[in-house]
Amino acid sequence: MSDILVVGSVAYDTIATPEERKEDLLGGSANYFSLTASLYSKVKVVGVVGDDYRPQDIAILEKRNVDLRGLQKVSGRTFHWEGKYEKDMNEAITLDTQLNVFENFDPQLPEEYKTSKYVFLANIDPDLQHKVLDQIESPKLVGVDTMNFWINSKLDSLRKILKRVDVLLINEGECRELAKTWNTVNAVKHLSEMGPRAVIVKRGEYGFLMYSEGQYFVLPAFPVSKVVDPTGAGDTFAGGFFGYLSKINGNWNLNHVKHACIHGCLLASFTVEDFGLKALQKVDWPEVEARQSDYFKIISYLD
Amino acid sequence: MSDILVVGSVAYDTIATPEERKEDLLGGSANYFSLTASLYSKVKVVGVVGDDYRPQDIAILEKRNVDLRGLQKVSGRTFHWEGKYEKDMNEAITLDTQLNVFENFDPQLPEEYKTSKYVFLANIDPDLQHKVLDQIESPKLVGVDTMNFWINSKLDSLRKILKRVDVLLINEGECRELAKTWNTVNAVKHLSEMGPRAVIVKRGEYGFLMYSEGQYFVLPAFPVSKVVDPTGAGDTFAGGFFGYLSKINGNWNLNHVKHACIHGCLLASFTVEDFGLKALQKVDWPEVEARQSDYFKIISYLD
Repeated sequence: MSDILVVGSVAYDTIATPEERKEDLLGGSANYFSLTASLYSKVKVVGVVGDDYRPQDIAILEKRNVDLRGLQKVSGRTFHWEGKYEKDMNEAITLDTQLNVFENFDPQLPEEYKTSKYVFLANIDPDLQHKVLDQIESPKLVGVDTMNFWINSKLDSLRKILKRVDVLLINEGECRELAKTWNTVNAVKHLSEMGPRAVIVKRGEYGFLMYSEGQYFVLPAFPVSKVVDPTGAGDTFAGGFFGYLSKINGNWNLNHVKHACIHGCLLASFTVEDFGLKALQKVDWPEVEARQSDYFKIISYLD
Repeated sequence: MSDILVVGSVAYDTIATPEERKEDLLGGSANYFSLTASLYSKVKVVGVVGDDYRPQDIAILEKRNVDLRGLQKVSGRTFHWEGKYEKDMNEAITLDTQLNVFENFDPQLPEEYKTSKYVFLANIDPDLQHKVLDQIESPKLVGVDTMNFWINSKLDSLRKILKRVDVLLINEGECRELAKTWNTVNAVKHLSEMGPRAVIVKRGEYGFLMYSEGQYFVLPAFPVSKVVDPTGAGDTFAGGFFGYLSKINGNWNLNHVKHACIHGCLLASFTVEDFGLKALQKVDWPEVEARQSDYFKIISYLD
């Protein structure tokens, strides 16, 4: 087991689905990631919150023993995102983004963070991703996520990040956009040529596709019969993925990386079952194991 | 091994993709199905063509030993469909449908067809599906496909068909429409309550989801790096599915049905690699086996 460092957003989200609307839900990529990865290993968070950040939201992570020394508290309001989902629940439509304290975020790592071996750079400005990576001495596994906004506005910086990371975790739409090709199977090859040893495409309700060492690995998602709120599923995937590999922390091979993808997928299936972090908060290890066992039955074609 | 009867359209298609446009390609559900299923078993076709139907298109099926005594030849033009695909290649946009000789199609089965044990009712008017089924003595496995047009115009007849079949094979969008729910995992349960012992949802590039005997079985599609034309992939799936089960023709269990889904999926991955029936025409058994072996590697998470 080895510590995992994550840098990302810590946010309050307002989310509308066809059935309900919820205001000021705890959210943000760093929260989804760390609440998940902390089921496996010790997690260290780098992020920023405003003075409106609720003490009980700190407590949620503390309960999972997450290290929050790298969570800066500054004057102003916490990052706020508002989005809605339509019937098919596949894609969020952003209604409002208020960067607030996130606008001037300057990630400074506490000394104890700089020796982190597992590093996840969630979807933030690639310039900040570089800044975080510059402060880390000799990471063992670095993963990165990104989104269309950075593909369009900071492509050069993003391309440079891809040369510095081991794993790219990306949504299917953004994978196609970054690779400039509509075929995902083809797109991941292009992206892997840009640097990462493994490219993992998150396909929402359809699971994931990984490309690494010239091989594809594709599996479906766990079938969820009531998707309440898909927000954070991608960061949860990353949390399960990093959690699994950091827990092994040996010389893992491609097979371990495959199992890490499966764990990402399984943990994400909890997240979508309730609003925000609610479902994830309640998940414990026996539930993860039970879902894994159900999942293996669902994809099994052997007698 | 047991004979398979298919009733469906035999057509000429005009298809435009972002890269190319092809006129008067051989198509139709019965052709895709029988060209596939004939790799496994003897196939009998029930359908209708006009006097413009080209002898070389008959020869394609004859080469695979398909029984065409049930293919009526009448005066007039063959059914013609025109469609286009946009960048994501996921959904066909119908530009023109000319029923022609298909408009007055009255399926009459040759005597030798009436003892068929395996019956696939491709996507045609549910009234005609009933008419075919009425003529068959004691089928062992009946499958049906349908589409939004019949869901909207002949729902009663379609519901009655569902009570007479063992397997429903349906596109994801149409599954949701017929079940009146947006969640596919939930929708298949509703549909299975309407009659079929197994409901198989075809998800295009994402594979399939089956629900049977209270269990889900979900797997991804074979990753295809160049999708040329997805037309007919669903009927190819049905052909591989029926082909596999008819070849066993024993008391197959759920595990055989799972393998039949996998074969459907694998065969469909050939179809999309070229326009119309071109790729499927060239496929032979060793290629199917090679693809199956590749597929099992791609979805394998075991050492």
